[in-house]
Amino acid sequence: MDLIYLLDLIGTFVFAISGIRIASRINMDVFGASVVGFVTAIGGGTVRDLLLDSHPITWMADMTYPLVILAAVPFTFLMGKRLNNYSKTIFIFDTIGIALFTIIGMEKALSFGFNPFIAGMMGMISAVVGGVTRDVLCREVPLIFRKEIYATACLAGAIIFYLGLELSLPENLNYLFTTAV
Amino acid sequence: MDLIYLLDLIGTFVFAISGIRIASRINMDVFGASVVGFVTAIGGGTVRDLLLDSHPITWMADMTYPLVILAAVPFTFLMGKRLNNYSKTIFIFDTIGIALFTIIGMEKALSFGFNPFIAGMMGMISAVVGGVTRDVLCREVPLIFRKEIYATACLAGAIIFYLGLELSLPENLNYLFTTAV
Amino acid sequence: MDLIYLLDLIGTFVFAISGIRIASRINMDVFGASVVGFVTAIGGGTVRDLLLDSHPITWMADMTYPLVILAAVPFTFLMGKRLNNYSKTIFIFDTIGIALFTIIGMEKALSFGFNPFIAGMMGMISAVVGGVTRDVLCREVPLIFRKEIYATACLAGAIIFYLGLELSLPENLNYLFTTAV
Repeated sequence: MDLIYLLDLIGTFVFAISGIRIASRINMDVFGASVVGFVTAIGGGTVRDLLLDSHPITWMADMTYPLVILAAVPFTFLMGKRLNNYSKTIFIFDTIGIALFTIIGMEKALSFGFNPFIAGMMGMISAVVGGVTRDVLCREVPLIFRKEIYATACLAGAIIFYLGLELSLPENLNYLFTTAV
Repeated sequence: MDLIYLLDLIGTFVFAISGIRIASRINMDVFGASVVGFVTAIGGGTVRDLLLDSHPITWMADMTYPLVILAAVPFTFLMGKRLNNYSKTIFIFDTIGIALFTIIGMEKALSFGFNPFIAGMMGMISAVVGGVTRDVLCREVPLIFRKEIYATACLAGAIIFYLGLELSLPENLNYLFTTAV
Repeated sequence: MDLIYLLDLIGTFVFAISGIRIASRINMDVFGASVVGFVTAIGGGTVRDLLLDSHPITWMADMTYPLVILAAVPFTFLMGKRLNNYSKTIFIFDTIGIALFTIIGMEKALSFGFNPFIAGMMGMISAVVGGVTRDVLCREVPLIFRKEIYATACLAGAIIFYLGLELSLPENLNYLFTTAV
């Protein structure tokens, strides 16, 4: 349980960074960038919780999530120039976040009694809605629709995770394995 | 009841096709097009169910909807060139879907005890949210805002359906009549 | 209580006007403009109610809101040319609405038992989601991200309102004071 929670926070942090970076690039001010970072980080989980009728929404009940996102704002601006040197940084951030959120979304949907197909969709929704909303707000064609690799990773993660569950792998090992893929 | 359900599935199918076609036209890959098709098909019903606090969301409780949408993907790509010959196809698909979804949304809202005005709005929301989301994702000005005919059809459908209810027309006849308009 | 309600209706009216005006400017027809006006006016409150799991959604339970929005349509079109003479009108409308909706959103979240930070976020969501959705539908870069003044006003309103609560100011005085700021 602790590892899942930690991974979720890391995913939230990297998603917030990706939102803040893209918003900054189109010259939004620091407030606008923070809002986009926030929406990117919690958008997927929020829609997942609304669809599952799971209340209160995760980030409204646990202040750690908003604080992690707030921490991402100065972090991103302070790291700014150094992050720019790594052109693939945002891509990697996004991919890690997508894998983590897919797993967590699936698990939550399964715990609500939905079948594996719907759980896989909830996983994907958790993973991609934040990034899609970020891209709509920044008037980009959503990245998920241009980079097949994301979707494939996300789908593969879901399938591997489910197979892992079926095979009764130790749960934490399963998380690490899925994320590695 | 059977007829309503069948009409709902047909509406879902044609909405998915319209989403897949528009996404393909702006060069999204097959995964992106499938996502847009899915959102187009279930977006309106999902927002309606969330607003009505009707859980589980229709397509999450009945696998027929996701399967119908998945079936629309190969269908649209296989039919691709032939569909292109009919320039009005997408327009007709959209109009049929809008009429069907308006009726179903109204009926659901009325069954939840809302008044006819709110029910009419739920009908419109069921009918247009999917298409609007499709157009936002594909960065088009939403079709509903450019083609008055859609909105008019939708509104007319709602009014006729309500009058039909008041006049105690046989229910199935009422559905057919409204859709015909 | 009466004053809060009246302010809420005024905020709804001015938000609807801002939506209708922006939609008209990009040549949407009267139906499209009405939809944008509606979404601008009720978008923030709707998302707030969904996140708080507060059902029925405010405007679905109280017909006054839809009627106020409907009234804004002929008002905006009749006033059209005169409104154009005042280039800052839309800016002022938006700012008033944002301050009012922030306060109402905060108060509702506090009454649901959320902490002041989350309440502040619910206030902001109530205030900005409508305008952001309006700008996305009209394919503008959301105004909130370009005009720091909005966000600052919104944040300041939230803090002042909370301080006011803490200091046990008479409630109606507090509302007026926050809105004035």
